[in-house]
Formats: sequence, C-alpha cells, structure tokens
Amino acid sequence: MDQDQDQLPFDVFARNCPSRDTLGHVTGRWGALTLGALREDTLRFNELRRRVEGVSEKMLSQTLQALERDGLVHRHAQPVNPPRVDYALTALGREVAEQLLELIGLLESRMPDVLAAREVYDAEQRRP
Amino acid sequence: MDQDQDQLPFDVFARNCPSRDTLGHVTGRWGALTLGALREDTLRFNELRRRVEGVSEKMLSQTLQALERDGLVHRHAQPVNPPRVDYALTALGREVAEQLLELIGLLESRMPDVLAAREVYDAEQRRP
Repeated sequence: MDQDQDQLPFDVFARNCPSRDTLGHVTGRWGALTLGALREDTLRFNELRRRVEGVSEKMLSQTLQALERDGLVHRHAQPVNPPRVDYALTALGREVAEQLLELIGLLESRMPDVLAAREVYDAEQRRP
Repeated sequence: MDQDQDQLPFDVFARNCPSRDTLGHVTGRWGALTLGALREDTLRFNELRRRVEGVSEKMLSQTLQALERDGLVHRHAQPVNPPRVDYALTALGREVAEQLLELIGLLESRMPDVLAAREVYDAEQRRP
C-alpha cells in the first residue's frame, strides 16, 4: 500500500479500496458462518465443515485461506501423527466475529418479519 | 413457513434455514453496500449506482429485488413523467443497516492491521 493512510482513509464504497475485499471475505456467506463458528471454539477443518452445514471442502478451504491472509483466523498445524490442524480466531477476528454475531442474532430474531414480507412481495408478483 | 417458530428457532448455521438466504442478501458484497448507502439517504437507482462504485445495473437490480422481498428496502415509484423510483430502508432495514455499518466501520478502522497481515502471509507463501 503506497497510499498515505492519514490522507486517504479506507472506504468500502470506493471501488479500489482494499477494505472492500475484506468486507467480502468477512461477509460472504461462508466467511460469516466460518467466523461465527470459530467465535464459539477452536475447531479442526472437519469440525468446521460439520458446523457450517452445506459448505464444500473447497469453499471452506478458500474461505479459511482468505480469512487467514487478512489476519482474522490463525491456522495452527499440530506436530502430531496423523497431522492435525486447528483454526482459531485472532484478536482482530474475534472483534469482527462479535460484530457479525450481533448482526446474525438480529436477523434470526427478525425472520418472522422477513418471511411475512416475502409472502406479501410474492403475492404482488403473482397479481395479473 | 409451516415450522413452529417456538420450537424451531431460526439458525443460520442450519443448511435449510431461510435465515441463511437473508444473511446472504444482507452481507453479500453488493447487499451490504446497498444497505449502507441507503442508511444515509433515500436514493434513486442511478444515484445508488454511483454511490456503490463498480456495481453493474444488473447486479444492483437483483440486489434491490432481494432486499425488497425480504422487507428491508422499500421501492417507491413516483407518479411522474419521466418515471422516478426511490429506494429507502424500511424500519427493519434501518436496524440491519446500522449493525452492518458498525461492522464496516470496524473493518475500515482496522485495515492497516489487515494489510500488515497480508504482507506477512504473502511473504510466507513465497518462501521456498
């Protein structure tokens, strides 16, 4: 990064700001669920796969790489046989996960309203 | 929805829970930026396109439809010529946008740490 951070603050609305990639990693569906799962516990790859229902091995692997590169997740390879790799949140990852879980909690609690809105919307679409 | 909501609370970690779709709509890159932009002001389609730099007409249109269907965005067609359509947050959309903007603010403020982490990660990948 060559930009002077005092003069050019980060802005996710700006097309080329690197914060936009991080927003994508954190809030992409699998990113959000992975951070949320790790908020509860340090987990191994297969434990994460079970917790984040429906994620493929490839998507989880890509998600973890992006989160590790952004400094949100720490990958700890244990020197044991068979190999064992644990994933945990970093301090920054924990801050981000806490914000995300507040958002997730809000959405889960308001889903009855969301489902009611969908019914109204779909009924309007069906009107001749 | 036929499920008994007292017995089966919504859970984004569950594969078939409808809250997962909503999490995707809200936190997908364009969803998050669209909600964030509308937090500041009611906007027309082309104003939104300018604010959410880099979004295509098609993606913005799909994003708005999903957010409207979930009851987060209200679409108001003004009876004028030429036609004019305003987009605004609903009360629920405002709650969600506020949570999102806290997350965005956190990420923007911590981008120096994220960029430093990326440099370390990339240097390790390049090691022979």
